[in-house]
Amino acid sequence: MRQGRASRSGMEIVTVETQGPGLYEITAEAAAHASGDGVLTLFVRHTSCSLLIQQNADPDVQADILAFFDRLVPPADHPSMSYLTHTIEGPDDMPAHIKASLLPVSLQIPVTNGRLALGTWQGIYLFEHRTFSHRREVAVRMSR
Amino acid sequence: MRQGRASRSGMEIVTVETQGPGLYEITAEAAAHASGDGVLTLFVRHTSCSLLIQQNADPDVQADILAFFDRLVPPADHPSMSYLTHTIEGPDDMPAHIKASLLPVSLQIPVTNGRLALGTWQGIYLFEHRTFSHRREVAVRMSR
Amino acid sequence: MRQGRASRSGMEIVTVETQGPGLYEITAEAAAHASGDGVLTLFVRHTSCSLLIQQNADPDVQADILAFFDRLVPPADHPSMSYLTHTIEGPDDMPAHIKASLLPVSLQIPVTNGRLALGTWQGIYLFEHRTFSHRREVAVRMSR
Repeated sequence: MRQGRASRSGMEIVTVETQGPGLYEITAEAAAHASGDGVLTLFVRHTSCSLLIQQNADPDVQADILAFFDRLVPPADHPSMSYLTHTIEGPDDMPAHIKASLLPVSLQIPVTNGRLALGTWQGIYLFEHRTFSHRREVAVRMSR
Repeated sequence: MRQGRASRSGMEIVTVETQGPGLYEITAEAAAHASGDGVLTLFVRHTSCSLLIQQNADPDVQADILAFFDRLVPPADHPSMSYLTHTIEGPDDMPAHIKASLLPVSLQIPVTNGRLALGTWQGIYLFEHRTFSHRREVAVRMSR
Repeated sequence: MRQGRASRSGMEIVTVETQGPGLYEITAEAAAHASGDGVLTLFVRHTSCSLLIQQNADPDVQADILAFFDRLVPPADHPSMSYLTHTIEGPDDMPAHIKASLLPVSLQIPVTNGRLALGTWQGIYLFEHRTFSHRREVAVRMSR
């Protein structure tokens, strides 16, 4: 995972290099863009990955979340998914779009004195749904 | 689909006339309310339709998303839904409330120089879950 | 249910004492923090409960929503959930994390002249997924 920043009128881009399905933590990168008092908005600029705030302590939680979503939305070549029509981009593509509909594309977190109002156990993640490597962009911006 | 606007202290209303379940694109209407630098908030004022950001290129993607949610939450007269109790408003009503719980009621999109930070393939949609025609309102507002 | 407030640089905390799974209405508490023109952000500081905007008229709707999510994500000791690995905190814990991934952690509601732009039938709820009593915190903040 690599992070980049590009300031444009107050908006920053957090870049995440993903290598297959999973939760990639971006809590520190998001926190680095929080300042003063207001609300931090995160917005993922893609339709086959998601944002997610989840438990940051036990990796088993993240593994179970992945397993649940893979069972709820199996690959397109699974018999239960035979109704899918958009299959030209591979068996992981359309399920990725469906997962990206079920999970957040935008998140807003209150900020006080430059600190995110996260609970003790909350981490911020980029949730990759595609099989192959991708370079993902999360737009981040404070509002007051 | 018809769009209306009604400025009230900076809040605008995008109106969408729906004719049955499906994704109704409102990207242009949302973009028309973006200005300067900040965050655009969209909020749908109903509990049986949703907002959704999804792939805007291949209509098959949208058809597959509809098919997935119809299988996940079938009409109330489907045997698997016999546990539902709120059925007086028709077999499409309670499933619409459930879909509206699974899909976004609010979205936030960063704005730079009046442009939404949407990715190349992202479109903004009103996702109608009810069978009959409805007039839907999406409240839209910039914050800085 | 008990509500508390603690002003910190414009951020307020709405506290909800939950006694088991269900929807706990916080519309009035949220509305009390709306002022002027802008957007109200609500953010739940936990990973095993959610926020939800849903129909506020018929309690059957809320019961059906609970029933749907309990069927979609049964307790960890249900045969269909035998793949779960994070089970040390009880059979309700990992399903609570999964529900908290499917349902909103943050909500944004436009505000005009101090009034939330809620539709007629929209209520704001804290959706508790855990079996035992919990003290939940919802961070609330206006942005302009």
